[in-house]
Formats: sequence, C-alpha cells, structure tokens
Amino acid sequence: MSVLVVGSTALDSIRTPRRACPKLLGGSASHAGVAASFFAPVKLVGVVGSDFPARYLALYRRHGIDCAGLQHASGPTFHWSGEYEVNMNNRRTLATELGVFEHFRPTLPSAHQGTPYVLLANIAPALQHHVLDQMRRCRFVVADTMDLWLRIARKDLLRLLRRVDALVLNDSEARDLAGTDNVFTAAARIHRLGPRCVIVKKGEHGAVLSSPTGLFLCPAYPLTRVADPTGAGDSFAGGLVGYLASVRGPVERHLRRAMVYGTVVASFCCEDFGLNRTDRITRADIDARVGELERMARF
Amino acid sequence: MSVLVVGSTALDSIRTPRRACPKLLGGSASHAGVAASFFAPVKLVGVVGSDFPARYLALYRRHGIDCAGLQHASGPTFHWSGEYEVNMNNRRTLATELGVFEHFRPTLPSAHQGTPYVLLANIAPALQHHVLDQMRRCRFVVADTMDLWLRIARKDLLRLLRRVDALVLNDSEARDLAGTDNVFTAAARIHRLGPRCVIVKKGEHGAVLSSPTGLFLCPAYPLTRVADPTGAGDSFAGGLVGYLASVRGPVERHLRRAMVYGTVVASFCCEDFGLNRTDRITRADIDARVGELERMARF
Repeated sequence: MSVLVVGSTALDSIRTPRRACPKLLGGSASHAGVAASFFAPVKLVGVVGSDFPARYLALYRRHGIDCAGLQHASGPTFHWSGEYEVNMNNRRTLATELGVFEHFRPTLPSAHQGTPYVLLANIAPALQHHVLDQMRRCRFVVADTMDLWLRIARKDLLRLLRRVDALVLNDSEARDLAGTDNVFTAAARIHRLGPRCVIVKKGEHGAVLSSPTGLFLCPAYPLTRVADPTGAGDSFAGGLVGYLASVRGPVERHLRRAMVYGTVVASFCCEDFGLNRTDRITRADIDARVGELERMARF
Repeated sequence: MSVLVVGSTALDSIRTPRRACPKLLGGSASHAGVAASFFAPVKLVGVVGSDFPARYLALYRRHGIDCAGLQHASGPTFHWSGEYEVNMNNRRTLATELGVFEHFRPTLPSAHQGTPYVLLANIAPALQHHVLDQMRRCRFVVADTMDLWLRIARKDLLRLLRRVDALVLNDSEARDLAGTDNVFTAAARIHRLGPRCVIVKKGEHGAVLSSPTGLFLCPAYPLTRVADPTGAGDSFAGGLVGYLASVRGPVERHLRRAMVYGTVVASFCCEDFGLNRTDRITRADIDARVGELERMARF
C-alpha cells in the first residue's frame, strides 16, 4: 500500500567541524519520503521554489516518488542553515529563510486523499490538521513534531494528538510535552492526550515505543562515524511508515520491526551529508543492517 | 562456582532532591557482592572500621556472603557523602573520608586464592593488581574502574588491562581511556590494551558488550522512578559475574544474558537508597524482570 508524506522540502546548508555543505536537498518530507520509498510507493506533498535544482526533482523520481502533490511556487525554496558542534549532538540554527514555504498550504490532489498510510512529517500542526481534513479512511496516521511547535503552537498540536494513531517525538520534546523528566512516564501521559502509539526517539540511544502491546526498547544501529545527523529523525519516521505500508495484517503486529527499519534507514542518513548516503543505498543494504541489529540485540 | 569480590566497603551518606539518608551500607564490594549473591556463593574482601554497624554484617550474612576476607580494623569505616541533582544524572561528592580504607591491602585468605570467578570491583588499580598477584587459575577476571583512576593511576590501570578478561567502565570513562568521542571506536581501542571483553555502561541507556563474538547492545530496564542510583554500576558488575559463575560451559556463551541479569539487579538497586531495595529482592524477582526485558527487546 502507499504512503502519503507531507512536510517541508528545503535546501539545507550544513556545517560540521569537518566540512561545510551548501544547499543540500533537505526538509522533513524529503528525508521521510526517500526513507519510505525503499518499502512502499510514496506520494510527496510539499512546496519548492523557482531555485529548486532539477537534480533534486530527479532524485525524488529516481526513488519512484509521486510528485503530483509537490507544489511549485515562484520565489526561493525554504532554506535552513545550521552548524553542529564537535560531538554532533548540539545543533545551532544559523539562518531560517522560509521563502515559498511561508505561504504553503498542503492541498492534496484528489487521488492522494485516500492514501492508507499517512506521515505528517514535521511541519506546523495547523498544516498537519489541514492534511487530515482532506483525508478519507486512513489506515494509520503518524505525526512527527519538533520543539518549536511545542513552544509556539502547543494548542494546535494538542488538538492534533486526538486525531493521530502514533506520535513520534524526541526525548526532550516528550519530557516537555508531558511535564516530566522520565521518558516512560512521559509516554504514558502522552497516550492520555490521544495517540495509542507513542514513539520516543533518543538519537544514538535508540527509541522507545509505547503501545497497547506494551513497551518496545528499540536499539540504535551502532555507528562509528556520524557525518551529519540532519534528517535522521525524519528518515526514522519515513522508514517506519514505509515498512508498515509494505506488510499485511494488523499494524500493531509490525510496529516493532517497523521501528527497527526506521532506525536502520536513519543510520545510513547519518553517514553522509543530507541525502547523499540514503540516495545510494538499496533495500538489500537496509535488510543486511536489520539482520546485523538483530544479531546485536539477541540474548 | 563461587565469586571473589574485592572492593570498597563503605558508609554512604546520600542526599537527593527528595530525601537525605545518612550512613547507608555502601561501597563497590557491598553492592557488587550482594548483587552476585543471588546467583552464586560470594567471598567478599574489603575492610571495615570499628564503627561498622552489626546490622550490615548481618546483611552480608543474610545473603550467604563469606566474610572470611573482610578485614576489621580499628578506626572509622570509609565514609562517602554525595548529592544528586534533580534529574539524578549529576552527582557531586560532598566528602570522602577514607578512614581504615586508607591503609587497606586486600590480602586473601588462602581458601580464597583459587576462586574461579573474580570481580575486581572499583578500587585503586594497585590493589586490584595485588589481588591478582595472589590468585591461582582464575576462570574469568572482570575489573571495574572509575574516572578517578584514569586521572591519578592511569599507568597502573593500563598494566591491569593486560591481566583481565573483561573491563567494565562507563561511557565517559571509555571515551577518556580511548581518546575518542565514539563508544564503539573506544571499545575497539580498549581491546588493543588487553581485555578481550569490553563492557561500556551507559546508565539509563543500557550497556554495550564488545567481545570476540561481536557487539551486544544490552537495553536498560525501564524505570519510572530512580530513588538513588549509587551502586548501580557495582550491582551491574556483581550481577554479571555472579550469573557467569552460576552457569556451565564457555563464558562467552553466557555473557549476553549475564549483562541482562546485571542490568536487572542494577535496576532494583536504583529504586531505593543504598542496598535497601536489593536487600529485599529474590532470584524470582530478578528472573521476572529479565523476562519482561526479553519481551520488551524482542522484534
């Protein structure tokens, strides 16, 4: 089955202690869409400006991504620029130029409105609502978010939580949203806000799923070198939803493996700048790493 | 088979944001010895002063711990006092009064010198050497350490690494010892210093084993409340070695489960001050949590 991925499509200029890379393909929908494309057909919804390089459209197409819902507007593409510190854990935003993203309204082609799996990648909760308003009969809706929306659009986000099956967020966001230092207590509290599945990302420390079938402690794939972690969280969510769309039967039965697949795609994402590494991998590469992770987690 | 545990035996005065507890039973050998005692007979080697409460000796005995190697000296018992911050991750030492521990030499009764499993719990590397100098035909030697010895006794520690089968240390210590930010790279480098098994503790994020059979990513047991994490690392090492001593066949085959058992004993340790919780659990409680952890880690 197919996946609708709605989010930002951006140009990212990223600086790390080792290297600087200007105007990479970025944005939550780009990372999540490519990640999901290894498992299922993807329909991408976003907006790009007149400066958006043709090679990035070609990249989407190379991954079989349906771009009928990708809007082309006149003006500059959303441009984010940021810098990582030595240990790659602390990120500092240098500039955010919204460009055509400022007036983005994710209006869906009618052919997209019945897509069974929906990933509301990280964008303003009001836009995530607008997408759900247009959808019919979704099988499983996953929303990703970020600290910014907890600060400036908390009410919209809280209202969104009552409309989604799963919320993906990182540990500091979970603590903030639930008002507790403990991620397991936080997950329990977030259930009461709506989603029956709560997925807390902990970066290099893995992720936790809290769902009606209990807790799942998902290990992270061990990396010895992180070139650029930008988009790892989006890749995780994309891989997760893509995998779910690729298997049959109740979603709950596949959530754990879906998280492992998401984790593995995210690990590839971190190994080079932007989508450079993810663009070059195959489903077989992903399966091999999932097998490795299985062997490393077994006891 | 039995386990020799050598380390500090102390009185700990611990303050957390919720509570202050004076003169609890503490020290690396106390925590590790009690943890190991759930699995195998333990011989404890340490030193206590004339103020050491009889009820703590009774606690050792209640856990079947052989105290023939516990020295009684005149003077005060080693006293450590420390304080935890709100999130329980940052610890501040308020006072360290060495007392009789200052002149401690872990001289072993001859009946102890053939003990097959040895845990050199956290004490000065010179004392850990002294123990090994007295041992005959050990089956498996595990050394624990701490940041202090990396700073003030690095040379002794490096020499010790060539004499042990496994080194247990936390992630920041591993980074420091190996001179790299990445724990997996650190583990690989530490192998070259001697131990064929390197176990990196990551607190609430679990632990990593690097051994000839590859990496093992050990999850931490999810706790919703941490009362006092003092001794969790010692409990982990004690549970690990105790479990190894309780099973047959090559050590390598059991290391993963041994880490899981260590993790579970450590989780109990965190749930109350000092040894208050660990003192009250049974092997059945431990097995139940190991079962839970298995279900939470399966995918």
